[in-house]
Amino acid sequence: MYIHSTKVRVRYGETDQMGYVYYGNYAEYYEVARVEMLRSLGMDYASMERTGVMMPVLELNCKYIKPALYDQEITIKTTVAELPGVRIYFKYELFNEAEELINIGATTLVFVDMVKNKPCLPPEDFMEKMRGFFD
Amino acid sequence: MYIHSTKVRVRYGETDQMGYVYYGNYAEYYEVARVEMLRSLGMDYASMERTGVMMPVLELNCKYIKPALYDQEITIKTTVAELPGVRIYFKYELFNEAEELINIGATTLVFVDMVKNKPCLPPEDFMEKMRGFFD
Amino acid sequence: MYIHSTKVRVRYGETDQMGYVYYGNYAEYYEVARVEMLRSLGMDYASMERTGVMMPVLELNCKYIKPALYDQEITIKTTVAELPGVRIYFKYELFNEAEELINIGATTLVFVDMVKNKPCLPPEDFMEKMRGFFD
Amino acid sequence: MYIHSTKVRVRYGETDQMGYVYYGNYAEYYEVARVEMLRSLGMDYASMERTGVMMPVLELNCKYIKPALYDQEITIKTTVAELPGVRIYFKYELFNEAEELINIGATTLVFVDMVKNKPCLPPEDFMEKMRGFFD
Repeated sequence: MYIHSTKVRVRYGETDQMGYVYYGNYAEYYEVARVEMLRSLGMDYASMERTGVMMPVLELNCKYIKPALYDQEITIKTTVAELPGVRIYFKYELFNEAEELINIGATTLVFVDMVKNKPCLPPEDFMEKMRGFFD
Repeated sequence: MYIHSTKVRVRYGETDQMGYVYYGNYAEYYEVARVEMLRSLGMDYASMERTGVMMPVLELNCKYIKPALYDQEITIKTTVAELPGVRIYFKYELFNEAEELINIGATTLVFVDMVKNKPCLPPEDFMEKMRGFFD
Repeated sequence: MYIHSTKVRVRYGETDQMGYVYYGNYAEYYEVARVEMLRSLGMDYASMERTGVMMPVLELNCKYIKPALYDQEITIKTTVAELPGVRIYFKYELFNEAEELINIGATTLVFVDMVKNKPCLPPEDFMEKMRGFFD
Repeated sequence: MYIHSTKVRVRYGETDQMGYVYYGNYAEYYEVARVEMLRSLGMDYASMERTGVMMPVLELNCKYIKPALYDQEITIKTTVAELPGVRIYFKYELFNEAEELINIGATTLVFVDMVKNKPCLPPEDFMEKMRGFFD
């Protein structure tokens, strides 16, 4: 199991007229969280794409428990609970500044060889790092 | 059961550097689809909010089957399969111009009395219309 | 001079907690307006990009006169007042349902040969059509 | 004159299929920059709105010099060159990691008394701080 924490601050443009973060904008928070998680493992998604491997999203699930509000600093706890293969599963728990759990998310992504346009295994150096967390 | 169809055209700003619609932007397509569905039943969400009832989203699920691409006209088939109560469940099926199913979504929304800040039943005229589809 | 009109309906996700369309979202309305304008002249931006010509934006100007509100149908009047060369200038006037002018925009775009990564002239069939409006 | 610097990292969802940050998304970067600038002066925009003063945007100008790319850390240098009155003018200069100037922006905002729905002067404690920079 690998757990990582990131913070995002709610932007004005991310709120809607209810005064809440628009429900579609959490996907971008999850993206920030998983990219920072990968970076914390020495895996830079931008360079991975340049070497021909991309990670499109296959599935997204969100539960909205409490609204996120403008200018709040949201803490995102990201968990990879299973050793990744062709697919990688991320779970996200979002907390507001009062440390209340406000949102739960999950995404499934697939590693894709951009030349063959087919699913592929993750880069070996990334797998090596990940294995360290699943002994 | 009530089924309704809407079309949205993919905007350039909705794509990302994979050349696909960004996974977070489908939520907005679902929003357009359900608002148009409600309108087709004579229920105007904007006026409903002005009368003090709002419908925040409790849950969102998306399956990404094939990418949606820039400038494609996407058809969204929206289904309400259960008579709504305090909660209303929408299902979405998205088709590209080749009539391929590219995305499946589901959302749970709750009717909220904005003054009491509590869940409430849907407006009665809306329920009356809905009942006609669930005999 | 060539003038064209398009409509967009304000989405919930485009509003912010002021209850107005977020100021950054007008750029996407302008995009929709100019793409539909080009389409009305038989020029399909998506296919143009596939043939290796893209049109990045060089400059954007917006004046916010009155707010656009959720669910309003906004009419965008798009004007090309000068025969395009390597650059093309669009002006936008946005009207709400009460036909009030609510927003004025302008963008400068450049035609770019994607292989050479250099500015280029617009496709000849497009220029031919445009010349008809500038006699 | 008051100058302040902020950083934003480009999110995947902010790019478009050109592989650049979509031209409409810079407005949100400017928003982040000016809010952080105000915060650096002890002025919290979120609380200001709660006390009944909001700052809608009247005008936006952007010049796109070089594209911002996915995952780049962009530095935004924000300048207030004139002592604010009812209106406040912000200028933005964006630099990529190679310290190249990639974008220039400007916005005009107005202080609005939300109860009277009329322009008003900025909060006095903010003006006091600002005056220190304009002697």
